[in-house]
Amino acid sequence: MSALRIIPVSLGTRSYDIEVGSENLKQIGTFLAAFQPISSAVILTDENVNRLGYAHRVAESIAETGIDASIFSIAAGEQSKSIETAATLWETLLEEGIDRKAVLVSVGGGVIGDLGGFIAATYARGIRFFQVPTTLLAQVDSSVGGKVGIDLPKAKNMVGAFLQPLGVLIDIQTLQTLPDDQYRSGLGEVIKYGVSLDAELFQFLETNIEKINLRDIVILKRIVADCCRIKAKIVTEDEFETTGYRVLLNYGHTFAHAFEIQSGFKLLHGLAVSIGAICAARLAVRLGLVDETFLQRQLDFHQALGLPTEVPNGIDWHQTTGLMRRDKKSEFGKLRFVLPTGIGSCRLIDDVDPSLIERGL
Amino acid sequence: MSALRIIPVSLGTRSYDIEVGSENLKQIGTFLAAFQPISSAVILTDENVNRLGYAHRVAESIAETGIDASIFSIAAGEQSKSIETAATLWETLLEEGIDRKAVLVSVGGGVIGDLGGFIAATYARGIRFFQVPTTLLAQVDSSVGGKVGIDLPKAKNMVGAFLQPLGVLIDIQTLQTLPDDQYRSGLGEVIKYGVSLDAELFQFLETNIEKINLRDIVILKRIVADCCRIKAKIVTEDEFETTGYRVLLNYGHTFAHAFEIQSGFKLLHGLAVSIGAICAARLAVRLGLVDETFLQRQLDFHQALGLPTEVPNGIDWHQTTGLMRRDKKSEFGKLRFVLPTGIGSCRLIDDVDPSLIERGL
Repeated sequence: MSALRIIPVSLGTRSYDIEVGSENLKQIGTFLAAFQPISSAVILTDENVNRLGYAHRVAESIAETGIDASIFSIAAGEQSKSIETAATLWETLLEEGIDRKAVLVSVGGGVIGDLGGFIAATYARGIRFFQVPTTLLAQVDSSVGGKVGIDLPKAKNMVGAFLQPLGVLIDIQTLQTLPDDQYRSGLGEVIKYGVSLDAELFQFLETNIEKINLRDIVILKRIVADCCRIKAKIVTEDEFETTGYRVLLNYGHTFAHAFEIQSGFKLLHGLAVSIGAICAARLAVRLGLVDETFLQRQLDFHQALGLPTEVPNGIDWHQTTGLMRRDKKSEFGKLRFVLPTGIGSCRLIDDVDPSLIERGL
Repeated sequence: MSALRIIPVSLGTRSYDIEVGSENLKQIGTFLAAFQPISSAVILTDENVNRLGYAHRVAESIAETGIDASIFSIAAGEQSKSIETAATLWETLLEEGIDRKAVLVSVGGGVIGDLGGFIAATYARGIRFFQVPTTLLAQVDSSVGGKVGIDLPKAKNMVGAFLQPLGVLIDIQTLQTLPDDQYRSGLGEVIKYGVSLDAELFQFLETNIEKINLRDIVILKRIVADCCRIKAKIVTEDEFETTGYRVLLNYGHTFAHAFEIQSGFKLLHGLAVSIGAICAARLAVRLGLVDETFLQRQLDFHQALGLPTEVPNGIDWHQTTGLMRRDKKSEFGKLRFVLPTGIGSCRLIDDVDPSLIERGL
């Protein structure tokens, strides 16, 4: 096992560590043992991840410390982030006699992390939670920051809570088994950090495009740790998304959410963010916040990483602005966007004229 | 309007006021206005309470301050504290364009308070919450302390959260329209405070039985304020039920929950608590914690207030202990009870031998 990078996250409510390493899944037992008494560990995973043996590795490590561990495997995909799946899980945990001293461990991508966190936040008014993200998207984004939740048929993440985990354990090796589109989807979030928040990371990514495409372990470990550090810093400043600071993580996201809904959630989140980020850059050009050179540099960068830049067929711009007004982050029905002001910097722009978007981006 | 009693509740996370008065519903607008900006007020109520005009009085007062107020009225009864009703409400709020700056105001009994609080805790990852309890049970118990949630088919309050409201406004006059069984149900919780936590309150209740039965406003104001003060003090010490102190509020409750489930939730909560408290007293006699005189004094007291003391027909004791082991407050499957040690005092007793209960109480 390679050395771990440990990123401490300090919050008003509590602090915890994010550990980034490789082939380190077997460390989880030791990690959890520090939080005894634990009556049992509920390991939530999906069928795809379960087939790869990650949940079993986690369960074995926990069982070795003397804590009962059971694997609960659900269907893979966004459609599992539903009220129906939550209801099934609540009732299953009750049937299995899971009590308040249990820990729920999510082993999988963003769906498993968000859903598992929501179950942990609400079952018996809250049990403890641990994250083992196995996709790039979950490692750099959804596993950090405490946002958990499920989707409504017409709005993603519309029901949820803020729940900080006991800790996050990231095994970079799990990225080797990730399907190509899911890997690209994770890169969509990675470029967000570079373009909108950290010029140094952007430079590092630009100079390592080949290695990123080859999934080089050393490069990925540095990238994942950097993204977690950037996000942890922002989350520390604005745990509950009340000061407006945390919203800066949402470059490309207001567009992305609307595209995902219109695609019936067939479009992967990070790919939607990639397209959304380009839309945001185009809107920023229209508003005079950045020039065409900025847009071109971002387009080249996305293309070199194999990321989509064009709005999918069938997107209706009028419907898009309607959906964006209903976004959780909208206030009083106004259109708000995080828009770039240069490489590594961005700003929240309030009350954008919908006609700027409705004529297409 | 009579003078208000204001009980401050201070918690680690925040503090708020419980206001106890009479004919004071029209004060809510002023109260809420202090928490601007508010995009709109979502008033949740049930059909019975709505018919009495309380939700309209609240809505009018809020609207007078210039905040949009809408009333959402659902079917009355425990069956509304379900995943299905929660799903309908989440989707309705989304359809109505309710955003994160909205406030949810529960106007009704415990079901409306618990369900409304759960919706507020989870919709858009949390909106603000205000309580206007209109039943005695909700005024002295469920509206104080931040516990919110819904039921699973096989376990009450199994899904939920801790959410402290912006404030609680109690209008004692609303108790005049309460059906007799619901009033008695509230008294079930009132006697809990006296018997298990506060000898002075017990004495006050014992000497005012007639006035309590006549729903005397002055006496009730004193009782409700006392109960809120006792509960607020305990909740302040143990907001998230982690130190074991808060569990002392649960005299009679472990039995009560099991009886409610076995009755298919036809037995009102406070009446179940009344029976549960007698069961707990009988168990305490068996364990030598109190003597027969204590039990007899409690029995006389319950009967004078028209409260049930006998276990309903059809209760299976073996099933009862099974259900109690699955209670949220059980740990590692053991039977735990809050048992009386005298008037106004109680103790948590761990790991009770099930055979003591299974031979009947």
